[in-house]
Amino acid sequence: SASFDSTEHPHRRFNALAGEWVLVSPHRSKRPWQGQQEETEQDQRPAYDPTCYLCPGNSRVGGEVNPKYESTFVFNNDFGALTADVPTGGVNEGGLLRAEAESGICRVICFSPRHDLTLPQMTVPAIRKVVDLWVEEFQTLGARPDINYVQIFENKGPMMGCSNPHPHGQIWAQRTVPGEPAKETVQQLAYFQEHGRTLLSDYLKIELEKQERVVLENEHFVVLVPFWAVWPYETIIISRRAVQDITQLTPDERDALADAVRRLTIRYDNLFRISFPYSAGLHQRPTDGQEHPEWHLHMHFYPPLLRSATVRKFMVGYEMLGDPQRDVTPEFSAGRLREQSEVHYKDAGE
Amino acid sequence: SASFDSTEHPHRRFNALAGEWVLVSPHRSKRPWQGQQEETEQDQRPAYDPTCYLCPGNSRVGGEVNPKYESTFVFNNDFGALTADVPTGGVNEGGLLRAEAESGICRVICFSPRHDLTLPQMTVPAIRKVVDLWVEEFQTLGARPDINYVQIFENKGPMMGCSNPHPHGQIWAQRTVPGEPAKETVQQLAYFQEHGRTLLSDYLKIELEKQERVVLENEHFVVLVPFWAVWPYETIIISRRAVQDITQLTPDERDALADAVRRLTIRYDNLFRISFPYSAGLHQRPTDGQEHPEWHLHMHFYPPLLRSATVRKFMVGYEMLGDPQRDVTPEFSAGRLREQSEVHYKDAGE
Ligand SMILES: O=P(O)(O)O[C@H]1O[C@H](CO)[C@@H](O)[C@H](O)[C@H]1O
Ligand SMILES: O=P(O)(O)O[C@H]1O[C@H](CO)[C@@H](O)[C@H](O)[C@H]1O
Repeated sequence: SASFDSTEHPHRRFNALAGEWVLVSPHRSKRPWQGQQEETEQDQRPAYDPTCYLCPGNSRVGGEVNPKYESTFVFNNDFGALTADVPTGGVNEGGLLRAEAESGICRVICFSPRHDLTLPQMTVPAIRKVVDLWVEEFQTLGARPDINYVQIFENKGPMMGCSNPHPHGQIWAQRTVPGEPAKETVQQLAYFQEHGRTLLSDYLKIELEKQERVVLENEHFVVLVPFWAVWPYETIIISRRAVQDITQLTPDERDALADAVRRLTIRYDNLFRISFPYSAGLHQRPTDGQEHPEWHLHMHFYPPLLRSATVRKFMVGYEMLGDPQRDVTPEFSAGRLREQSEVHYKDAGE
Repeated sequence: SASFDSTEHPHRRFNALAGEWVLVSPHRSKRPWQGQQEETEQDQRPAYDPTCYLCPGNSRVGGEVNPKYESTFVFNNDFGALTADVPTGGVNEGGLLRAEAESGICRVICFSPRHDLTLPQMTVPAIRKVVDLWVEEFQTLGARPDINYVQIFENKGPMMGCSNPHPHGQIWAQRTVPGEPAKETVQQLAYFQEHGRTLLSDYLKIELEKQERVVLENEHFVVLVPFWAVWPYETIIISRRAVQDITQLTPDERDALADAVRRLTIRYDNLFRISFPYSAGLHQRPTDGQEHPEWHLHMHFYPPLLRSATVRKFMVGYEMLGDPQRDVTPEFSAGRLREQSEVHYKDAGE
């Protein structure tokens, strides 16, 4: 009988970073799709939109007026899920009904004054300004005694719940460490205590030797489809140097992060020739005053599309009740991303 | 200064069943929505559709012909994510690249020969036939030595990745226990060892006393919005008697489960006057040959809609990178569901 072949047979992969499993069904990509098709919006936007509450000089819901900013701009979310002034308190009935007050700060970051751009359409120096603002915000928010974790992220595209196409991201900073980075802390700490090196340093070394899942590299960062990727075209940007957070990056490394984000998102747009939807965000050490030498800075990209601009992966019944499941192998997806040009299709003059 | 008020202030709630947290932002439900709107398909289907591969007498992709079934019908998924004949094997490189072959069986269950029905439009005796099939399948699949967990579920509606409107559900049965039931096993076992009663018995007792989150009851089951609900209108059906799996239900209890499913899904449809999308599924003891006295049968319903038939909750950036987040309290949602009639709006002749 045939021996096990991960390009063909169903299998589970272990997410060493989060300590969880994903079910991989390589043979299943051939199944026909008769379900929901996503809309591909024609992405024709003006450079300035008088009705956009993020454009320079416009007013927001709360009545505040945006400055005429020329690169980036950050402000407190007018409808933040977290607020700073929450009275402490909670509930605990037999460990079964447990709640506790949570305080925090929600910020919105405009990446550019230009309403019609997205990260892949910006220059490296312009994206570097976004990186600089991430650094500043992480520093300021993380220094507060009432903030122990800072989550920087972007939801791109209507499919990812983004309600305004003006290029922007968010920061939710809060008192407690949320579940995802908490799981990564457990895994990274166990590995660091055993090996004296960060989990992602050793993982990166294996991936660079194999070159099966690497998408692109520069001097300071590597972009790859993780061995345990859940989303069809999920990627991770890992710093070559084991730094715990973005404030430790040198100026050259900040440029290199901007370069990696730009080149990756251009490849994403080129894959299905649309403005590629995703949620992305940095994972960094908790800002709880401890050193966290086990932590290794990285950035996750979770894009929903599976087979084309209109066919997405649904994480539904089995995935919600059992385990995440994927239909193509991470190696296949990495190959598809590697094939893409790093010239954006809109600039390619085809 | 004001004291903590869970109807007003952001807080975290602990999911005692899964051992995880959810962020609750009650004040945030007022935020305006300018993002993606879902389509509401007009649900006008014929009782028989000659092009449907699930209708009685029609042929499927593999060429097989469905029998002229008169109540339920079950068969092996022609594009199953799991297959039974996988060679064993795997990979382990330093604990960082870890994979193992996974075997299993994927089944499809047609709930009715009628192409135009959904569970809330079926009678209790007809839904009872579905329950009977769940019992049979759990028994047969669970008895196999190569199957240690049986996941029964339904994806309803295109928004939940369902590609055929013919009323049907699925079963994925496999060698290993997936992450979600594994977490519930850990939590339930710890509770059972400490108290000698199942976690859900004690939880149910508290909820029945409070009546804040209960949606409906019958002699053998209670439907409520869990204290730790993630999705806006998430519910759970809990058996009053602590049984480990569906095969232990008496005939009366099977009828009562059918009744609870029917009344809940009618309320769901009435809430926004559409065929309400959701993923739902039973959680039961692993079929690994052990008794699992800690396990308590229940059924989860995870519906995506938030404010109307066209505005859904997006579990995106913060949720994927941090923790799940919700914008209305479970108590509010339970109140809205309690207000609904148990006569389906299509039958109400309004
Ligand atoms: O098996 P189906 O109905 O074709 O597919 C649907 O349910 C599966 C199980 O939740 C998911 O993996 C798929 O993404 C979804 O589209
Ligand atoms: O804050 P926004 O952009 O209005 O909202 C979006 O991102 C949030 C954070 O991931 C989510 O909670 C919302 O469901 C989503 O629509």
